Amino acid sequence: MTTTPASVLSSVLATGRTATEPALRDAIQTYLSPELARIAQYHIGWADADGRPTSTWSGKLVRPTLALLSSRAANGETAGGIPAAVAIELVHNFSLLHDDIMDGDTSRRGRATAWKVFGVPGAILAGDALAAAAGEVLLDSDAEGAASASASLMNATQRMISGQGADVSFEQRGDVTLAECLQMAGDKTGALLACACSLGADLVGADRALVQRLAAFGEHVGLAFQLVDDLLGIWGEEDRTGKQVGADLRVRKKSLPVVAALNASDSDELAGLYLSSEPLSEPDVQRVADLVERGGGRDWARDEAARQVAAAEECLAAAGIADAVRHEFQEVAGFIVGRRF
Amino acid sequence: MTTTPASVLSSVLATGRTATEPALRDAIQTYLSPELARIAQYHIGWADADGRPTSTWSGKLVRPTLALLSSRAANGETAGGIPAAVAIELVHNFSLLHDDIMDGDTSRRGRATAWKVFGVPGAILAGDALAAAAGEVLLDSDAEGAASASASLMNATQRMISGQGADVSFEQRGDVTLAECLQMAGDKTGALLACACSLGADLVGADRALVQRLAAFGEHVGLAFQLVDDLLGIWGEEDRTGKQVGADLRVRKKSLPVVAALNASDSDELAGLYLSSEPLSEPDVQRVADLVERGGGRDWARDEAARQVAAAEECLAAAGIADAVRHEFQEVAGFIVGRRF
Repeated sequence: MTTTPASVLSSVLATGRTATEPALRDAIQTYLSPELARIAQYHIGWADADGRPTSTWSGKLVRPTLALLSSRAANGETAGGIPAAVAIELVHNFSLLHDDIMDGDTSRRGRATAWKVFGVPGAILAGDALAAAAGEVLLDSDAEGAASASASLMNATQRMISGQGADVSFEQRGDVTLAECLQMAGDKTGALLACACSLGADLVGADRALVQRLAAFGEHVGLAFQLVDDLLGIWGEEDRTGKQVGADLRVRKKSLPVVAALNASDSDELAGLYLSSEPLSEPDVQRVADLVERGGGRDWARDEAARQVAAAEECLAAAGIADAVRHEFQEVAGFIVGRRF
Repeated sequence: MTTTPASVLSSVLATGRTATEPALRDAIQTYLSPELARIAQYHIGWADADGRPTSTWSGKLVRPTLALLSSRAANGETAGGIPAAVAIELVHNFSLLHDDIMDGDTSRRGRATAWKVFGVPGAILAGDALAAAAGEVLLDSDAEGAASASASLMNATQRMISGQGADVSFEQRGDVTLAECLQMAGDKTGALLACACSLGADLVGADRALVQRLAAFGEHVGLAFQLVDDLLGIWGEEDRTGKQVGADLRVRKKSLPVVAALNASDSDELAGLYLSSEPLSEPDVQRVADLVERGGGRDWARDEAARQVAAAEECLAAAGIADAVRHEFQEVAGFIVGRRF
């Protein structure tokens, strides 16, 4: 993807955020009960634990911006895509609320996670409520494609949940194949991005070919993102990314580069270290990183990420949308995959 | 409601179950990933913890039977309501899976709860997956009222979640009003029963007046059920109901009879015992039950349940449906509220 001044990206994201935020706030207040709205508002970063508004919220609303671009791609207008933008962000936050419980994470973006503050029942219910609200926003929109968009969102949500389930089950398994791992990543990360990149078009009644090409674009962007994220989880630059070097290895995550190396020949030493239940020392973590690299996991993941980016570009070109919208899609996709290629 | 031979009820429920079960099994296999389907199948009672089929499943599928009756009320046929029957049962089981985690319950119907067997992450995800599948089943049905029925189901799901959230928040509060408690019960129990009693009609494109009257019928049945359930939670007959006498009092549940008595005059002794944080001894539990009765909570709840049953009858009569279908609705409703009036 071509490099453009950061100000272009900032402007695209600021426009998306400005168009989405009021409708997102409104949806949470309209659909959720006051108790659960408070938990959701805390989780998103709009309120502190006592319900007082915060002034520090810096959410980028990347997925909503993609949803708005997709409605512009279909009919030149952003407004019709707003319910799609809201719905996709509601689903994203539903997944974060539940993931934090499942992973036992106690902090997110420098604040205590919702379940730490409000308890597990409150956080489970707030997540459930956001997921239901996402469907309500779309179906109440009375848009031409409301039923189609809702079906697409439910399907993406189901895939995301399946991917998360596979990720959990991989923890117990030593025989995960690369194909399974790619499917898991596509489900966990690709499905919701595919939906984000097409949901606005779907909602305003765009033709199926456009919806499908935009979805395919988002699916490839999602896989590229996951590959980059997995690379950073092993060899990450802590200053730039907030991800600790080796973070994923310490918790023995079956990430894509690791699974690629485990499925290569000569993986006995790596398997011995990584699939045992003994705690990994810091030298072990370093050794695992080296073995994943020697086993070709790092190169494969980089190459695969580049292939996914190229495939994304192709899908976007085939969509035949206005140049301005295409460039903005590229900007946001470049931001998501970390401008690494 | 008139008393009819048990065999009539058995036949209505058996017909509903026979029509629903294959489609319900199919939906879980189609929409959920194998890992999460296995958890759902265990939870429902179709499989043991190792995934082996069980032969002891005795689920009555009461809500699906109501959904099928509602499509028959609309167009004389059961078949069109099957996706509605499946969807409502998926949402019901989603709520049970999450409730068991939130309540920390370790057994359900004599078996270990899903989170005890598969862990909290698996049970959260299986619940999430069932909720998404419910929307998918309706939207993929291509029925005339698919969008309308989906919106109704999402709204009922949202109300159910709100009610559960209110129930959780009541635990921390000593000033719950009877109006708040009735709203909570309507949301937690009434909304899904209202949806069950109307969703099949909605799905096959029935007119709004019929859908609304059937929904109102179900809402009243739901409130009557909750009142009876709350009475049994205090003065229940353990042999007949499986509910221990005083069970709700021991955990200081803010159930409807208790809240009615707490909001009556002369409730100081009751408030002193029930709203403190000291453990309740068995004599305390007995004393609380007496005080709730003296405070009028028992009589009020009985009378209110009778009023809700009468209101349900009125709504059903106003719906103007075929006598045979109306009688079957009455049979199932009578079963739900325990034939106590």
